[in-house]
Amino acid sequence: MAQSRFPLTEPDELPADLRERVGEIARRSGFVPNIFRALGHRPAELRAFLDYHDALMNRDGGLSKAERELVVVATSGANHCLYCIVAHGAILRIRSKDPHLADQVAANPWQAPLGERQRAIADLALALARTPERFGDADIARARAAGLTDDEIWDVGAITALFAASNRLAHLAALQPNPEFYPMGRG
Amino acid sequence: MAQSRFPLTEPDELPADLRERVGEIARRSGFVPNIFRALGHRPAELRAFLDYHDALMNRDGGLSKAERELVVVATSGANHCLYCIVAHGAILRIRSKDPHLADQVAANPWQAPLGERQRAIADLALALARTPERFGDADIARARAAGLTDDEIWDVGAITALFAASNRLAHLAALQPNPEFYPMGRG
Amino acid sequence: MAQSRFPLTEPDELPADLRERVGEIARRSGFVPNIFRALGHRPAELRAFLDYHDALMNRDGGLSKAERELVVVATSGANHCLYCIVAHGAILRIRSKDPHLADQVAANPWQAPLGERQRAIADLALALARTPERFGDADIARARAAGLTDDEIWDVGAITALFAASNRLAHLAALQPNPEFYPMGRG
Amino acid sequence: MAQSRFPLTEPDELPADLRERVGEIARRSGFVPNIFRALGHRPAELRAFLDYHDALMNRDGGLSKAERELVVVATSGANHCLYCIVAHGAILRIRSKDPHLADQVAANPWQAPLGERQRAIADLALALARTPERFGDADIARARAAGLTDDEIWDVGAITALFAASNRLAHLAALQPNPEFYPMGRG
Amino acid sequence: MAQSRFPLTEPDELPADLRERVGEIARRSGFVPNIFRALGHRPAELRAFLDYHDALMNRDGGLSKAERELVVVATSGANHCLYCIVAHGAILRIRSKDPHLADQVAANPWQAPLGERQRAIADLALALARTPERFGDADIARARAAGLTDDEIWDVGAITALFAASNRLAHLAALQPNPEFYPMGRG
Amino acid sequence: MAQSRFPLTEPDELPADLRERVGEIARRSGFVPNIFRALGHRPAELRAFLDYHDALMNRDGGLSKAERELVVVATSGANHCLYCIVAHGAILRIRSKDPHLADQVAANPWQAPLGERQRAIADLALALARTPERFGDADIARARAAGLTDDEIWDVGAITALFAASNRLAHLAALQPNPEFYPMGRG
Repeated sequence: MAQSRFPLTEPDELPADLRERVGEIARRSGFVPNIFRALGHRPAELRAFLDYHDALMNRDGGLSKAERELVVVATSGANHCLYCIVAHGAILRIRSKDPHLADQVAANPWQAPLGERQRAIADLALALARTPERFGDADIARARAAGLTDDEIWDVGAITALFAASNRLAHLAALQPNPEFYPMGRG
Repeated sequence: MAQSRFPLTEPDELPADLRERVGEIARRSGFVPNIFRALGHRPAELRAFLDYHDALMNRDGGLSKAERELVVVATSGANHCLYCIVAHGAILRIRSKDPHLADQVAANPWQAPLGERQRAIADLALALARTPERFGDADIARARAAGLTDDEIWDVGAITALFAASNRLAHLAALQPNPEFYPMGRG
Repeated sequence: MAQSRFPLTEPDELPADLRERVGEIARRSGFVPNIFRALGHRPAELRAFLDYHDALMNRDGGLSKAERELVVVATSGANHCLYCIVAHGAILRIRSKDPHLADQVAANPWQAPLGERQRAIADLALALARTPERFGDADIARARAAGLTDDEIWDVGAITALFAASNRLAHLAALQPNPEFYPMGRG
Repeated sequence: MAQSRFPLTEPDELPADLRERVGEIARRSGFVPNIFRALGHRPAELRAFLDYHDALMNRDGGLSKAERELVVVATSGANHCLYCIVAHGAILRIRSKDPHLADQVAANPWQAPLGERQRAIADLALALARTPERFGDADIARARAAGLTDDEIWDVGAITALFAASNRLAHLAALQPNPEFYPMGRG
Repeated sequence: MAQSRFPLTEPDELPADLRERVGEIARRSGFVPNIFRALGHRPAELRAFLDYHDALMNRDGGLSKAERELVVVATSGANHCLYCIVAHGAILRIRSKDPHLADQVAANPWQAPLGERQRAIADLALALARTPERFGDADIARARAAGLTDDEIWDVGAITALFAASNRLAHLAALQPNPEFYPMGRG
Repeated sequence: MAQSRFPLTEPDELPADLRERVGEIARRSGFVPNIFRALGHRPAELRAFLDYHDALMNRDGGLSKAERELVVVATSGANHCLYCIVAHGAILRIRSKDPHLADQVAANPWQAPLGERQRAIADLALALARTPERFGDADIARARAAGLTDDEIWDVGAITALFAASNRLAHLAALQPNPEFYPMGRG
C-alpha cells in the first residue's frame, strides 16, 4: 500500500533549514512523520505549513496543549482524516495522559463524553469545521458562556482552520500514518 | 457594521517585516485588504499565512494565475465565504479579463459554464472542499483524463486546502470585504 | 456559451398581450431579460409566471419592495441560482440603495450582516427554501417575535415559493443573465 | 386540528371568476380542495396559481396525464409535502388506474419500481427538486437517452418547478388534505 | 414486478416452529406478510427477528400499542421504506382507529400534526433514526420534559433501532408490500 | 463517567439461560462486554439480540469472520458509534491479524485502503447504512461485478441492518466501551 499518491521526500533531500527542522522532529519522535515526507516535494509549502503549525500549536498562553490536540482530533474525526486522527490521536493520548480520550473524540466528536469546557471547545471547532457558512454569533456566545476568552476562541477557530487545510492535504495524498503512531500513548 | 469580530491591526502596528510586506500590498492595491488587518493581532500566524499564500499563488509553473483564482473562488463559493468571494472574485476578474466569470463561479461553482480544463479544475477542487472524506482515486483519475498533470493536481488540492483554512478564518471573524473590492475589474 | 438549453423567443414572436408586456419591461430596462426569452416558447406558462410575479412583487402593503428582493436574493443564493442572483441582485441594489447588500446576501444568506427585521425575513425564507419538510410552528413563532405580521409572513413564504419555482426553471434551462444586469446599481 | 395556519376562504367569498372556477372544480370533485380555500385570501395569487397549474397539467401534447401526476407525487414525496402527496396521490391512482403506484412513489420516489420511461421521468424531476444547483447536462443526457424529447423534458422540469412552489405553500400553511382525498381511487 | 430481490420462502418450507408461528400470523391476517417470506431462507435470522419484534411490540407496559406503531411509521417514513410504511401504516390505522394518521406521519414525520406526547415520541425516534451520532442528552431531556419515563424512552429508542434494521432488510430486498395491506383500516 | 444512560445489569442478575450465555462470553473475553450489561434490564430483548447476532456472525459459509467484522466496523464508523468501533475494532484486529485495519476503516470507511473484494463489501454496507432509500439495483450490480454471491450480499446487508440497530442502541444509552477493548489485538 502506497503511503502517498505523490512522491515522498526524505529529510536529506530537503533544503538545509527544513532538513534540520524535520530532523529534529524525527530525533524526538524516533521516526519521520509521513506528513513531512509528503509535503517535502514543495519546500516552500512545507516551510509555511510548519511555521503555521508552530505558531498555533506551540504558542504561549491560550488553550492548553491537550486542548489544542482536542481541537485537532475533533475536527479530524468530523473530516474522517485517517492520518490526522492517528498521528494527533497519539499526541492527544500523551498530552492528556488519557489512553481512551482520542478514540472517543475521533469516533464521535459531537457526543464524546467531555467536561463542560472541553465540550464547548469541541462544539466551537465542529461548528466551524463542517458547515462554516452557518457559523455565527450564537456559536461565539455559547463559547463565551462556557468561559472561553476571545483569545481562546481565536485559538480554537484558527486551529480548526489550519486542520481544515491539513486534513485536505492528507485526503489529497491518501496519506497513511506511520505505523509507530498507532500504539503510542496507549499505556 | 463591524468589519471583524476581533480587533483589527493597522500596518504600522505590525512587526517591521510584516509592516513592509503588507505595506507593499497596500501600495499596489490602494488599500489594506481586511484579511491582513484581521490576522495582524497574531503576527506569527499572519506571517505563515502570507508565506503559504505566496508559495501557492505566486509559484512558477503549474496552474495559470487565473486558474489558481478559479480554485479560490469555486471553493469559497461552495463554502459561502463572503470575504474570499468578493476579494478573490475581484482578482479573478482581473486575471481572467472576464467581468462575469467570478460571479458565475461564486454563485454556482458546480455548474458554472466553463471550458473542459477549467471544469476539471473546479470539480477537483469542489470534491476536496466539502466532503473530503469521499475524495478518492476516481477524482484523481477524472482530473488526469482532462489532461491535468500531477503537479497541477497538487496545485488544485493545495490551494483548496489553504482556502479551506482561509474561508474558516473569515467565517470565524465575520470578516467584511473592503468596499474597494466589490467594483474592481467590472469594466 | 448558450444562454439557455432551450430555444429562446424574442418579444415580437410572442402573442400580442405578452409582446406588449415584455416590451414594456424591455423599454424600462433597456433590454429583454433572458427569463422572458427563455419562457416564451410556452406563452401560457410565461403569462402565468408574470401574473404570479406581479401579484407578489408589485402588491400594495406588506413587505417593502427592497424586502421582497431580499427574499429573492437570499433564497436564490441558497439555491445557487446564477440568473436570479445576478438579475435580482441588481434590483436589490437599486431598491435598497446599497451597492454591497446583494453580494453579501447571495454569498452567505444565513450569516449576511442584516438588521433584526431583515434577518428574521431572511431566516424565514431560508427555512422554507431548502428543507421545507422541517418548516414548522417554531419558524412562524420566531418571525412573529421579530414583529412580522401574518400578512408579511405570507409574503415571505409565497415569494420563497415562487422563486423555488423560478430558480428551478433557470437551472433547468442553464439560463444565463443578460450582461447588463452584472454592473447595475453598483454606483 | 386546523386545516391551515392562515384564514380559509370559501368559494362564495371569492371574486366572480374564481368563484366560478373553483366552483367548477368543487362540482367535479364533490368538495372544495383545501388548497383553493388556503390561497383564496390572495385572489391574484390564486388566479395565477390556477393559470400556471392549468397551463402545465392540462396542456395538449407532451407527457401523459398520469406521467404529469407522477412528477407531482415524486417531487412531493421527496419534499415530504402531505397535502400534495395525498391530493395528487389520489389523482395519480385515478389517472394510472393503479391503486398502489402513488403510495410506492410517495414513500420512496428514488427507488419505486417503475418502467424505464417512468423511472427516467422521476429521476429527472428528483434531480431538480432537491439539489437544483447540481442539475446539469448529465441529467438532460440521461433523460434523452431514455427517449424523452426536449418538450417532455421541459414538462418534467416545469412541473417540478411549479410543485416546488406548491409544496412550499402547503408547508407554509401546514395545509391539511381534505379527508375525501385519502380513499379516492383505492378501488 | 418481483416481490423481493432474493428467493421467497413459503410457510410450509419453514422449520416446524416457524411454520407454526408464521402460520398463526397468516391465519389472523388472512395472508402471509411478505417480510416473513423474504426472511425465510435464513430461518435462524427469521426466528431472531420475530423474537426481537415480539419482545418490543407485544411487551406489557410502556408505550401503548398505537404509540409503538407511531414510532415504526415515523422512522420508516424518514427512511423511505415502502414495505414498513404500508404494512405498519395499516396496523397504525387499526390501532389508532384513525384512518389518516399513518399517511400523515409517513409523509412528513417531522411536522405531522400530533398531540404533545405523540410529538415527543416521534421527535425522539427521529433524532435517533437518521443522524444517531448527534443523539444526546438534550434529546433525552426533551422527552422527559414531555413526560416520558425512562422505560418509555427505551421503548422508543429500541423500536427505532429494530426498525433501522427492518427498514434496511426491506431496502436490501426491494421488498414489496402485500396488496392486502394498502386498503386495510381505511374505513 | 457513566457507562450507560440506563441501569446496568450484572450477569448474576440475568435469567439462567442468559447468565450462562453471557458468562461464557465473559469467560472467553476475561470481562463482561458492556453491551450485555446495558441490554440486560430487558432479558427478552437481550436474548433476541444475541440470537440475531449469532445467526449472522457465527453462521457457516458466506463471508469470512474477518469480512463480517469489516462490515461492522465500516458501518459503525459511518454511524460514529464509539462502542461498536472500539469493541468490534478489537475483534477485527484479531480476526484480520492486522493491527491497523480497524483504525483505518473506522476513521474513513469510504476511502480506507482495501483490496477489491473488501472494498466492494464495505461499499455495499455503506450504501445501505446511511441513505438506505437510495440503495438500489446499481449497488447490487457493483457487488456482483466484484464477485460477491447473492448469499454473501445478503450477509453484508443483514449485518449492516443488525448493526444499524446495534449502533442506535449504543447511541441511545451513550454506551461506553470496556477499557479492555481499546488495546486488544494491537500487538
